[in-house]
Amino acid sequence: MNIGIYIYDNAEVLDFSGPFEVFSVASRFLDEKEKFNVFLISEKSPTVTARGNYKINSHYTFENVPQTDVLIVVGGVHTEEVKKTTVINWIKEQSKNTKIVASVCTGAFLLAEAKIITNHTVTTHWEDIPDLKNDYPTLDVVEDVRWVDEENIITSAGISAGIDMSLHLVSKIKNLELANKTAKQMQFDWIKS
Amino acid sequence: MNIGIYIYDNAEVLDFSGPFEVFSVASRFLDEKEKFNVFLISEKSPTVTARGNYKINSHYTFENVPQTDVLIVVGGVHTEEVKKTTVINWIKEQSKNTKIVASVCTGAFLLAEAKIITNHTVTTHWEDIPDLKNDYPTLDVVEDVRWVDEENIITSAGISAGIDMSLHLVSKIKNLELANKTAKQMQFDWIKS
Repeated sequence: MNIGIYIYDNAEVLDFSGPFEVFSVASRFLDEKEKFNVFLISEKSPTVTARGNYKINSHYTFENVPQTDVLIVVGGVHTEEVKKTTVINWIKEQSKNTKIVASVCTGAFLLAEAKIITNHTVTTHWEDIPDLKNDYPTLDVVEDVRWVDEENIITSAGISAGIDMSLHLVSKIKNLELANKTAKQMQFDWIKS
Repeated sequence: MNIGIYIYDNAEVLDFSGPFEVFSVASRFLDEKEKFNVFLISEKSPTVTARGNYKINSHYTFENVPQTDVLIVVGGVHTEEVKKTTVINWIKEQSKNTKIVASVCTGAFLLAEAKIITNHTVTTHWEDIPDLKNDYPTLDVVEDVRWVDEENIITSAGISAGIDMSLHLVSKIKNLELANKTAKQMQFDWIKS
């Protein structure tokens, strides 16, 4: 199963490394055929400079990325990213054949711009809730939850909530036992709501 | 203040990205002069393939790294790493002029091999506690704690405990208010013991 995480310059480091870690650790408990194929996707250049000058290389660009089963769009300095027509169109196209679309933190703004979330109940980083409400008034933006799962569109709260959400995804795709084992292996105190 | 995080092939992704995120986020609340200078260090090649085929570029190698004020050594597949004389000697030398030395997860094995921890009270990933006790019998290895801070040598439990420990470091170096603000910004439920 292909788990693709979309990253970009000034993406928030934990927004993508947290979910990557969850699927990577969960795979250690799975048979070869059952393992998650988790990878990072960037637009053009494989080299991405995330926030704090964190230099990461994606596994695929838009040119060669395989179809994802789960697409995770991360947050960070999203304000420039939402303006990129190529990016928004790619997210829209990719999501059409994806079983699950998820966002971490302000990644929700990219899903809203791509009209993947329209009149959905969603969440984002606590600091960005007023802006998300204001920019996309048809959304029902809720606070004080780690994630919202609505019709296989899952939005999570800020930064570390992406880890809680990814554990939920492991539970949803595989089972709760595997998600609990993954959290234990990561010594992570999974907040399940 | 220079915060250097030592990484290597098959290092655990969250072991280094978690602490990097903490210092990076904390810096957003600080004046330019007060900000943490957080960077990743590798041995020879800047390109490092961490666990799960996560391709990260370090900021410095042993050849050009500046003296660190805080040196964080991360875990992962540490079994090959502890055998590397160059690495162990570098950790030993670098630590002599560093104010604080810390490990995440099985990074404790590297500190033990470098004799930075000898008869100290320490911790590591819950799964590796028997091995650490067995390999270095003079250590007092404790369990069920997120980190142990002894004489500016700080060892943390597995994977995500590196985030809790890094927040402790922010609190220790700067103040508790900044650490709490950082945890809130990361929407991270900081376990303080």
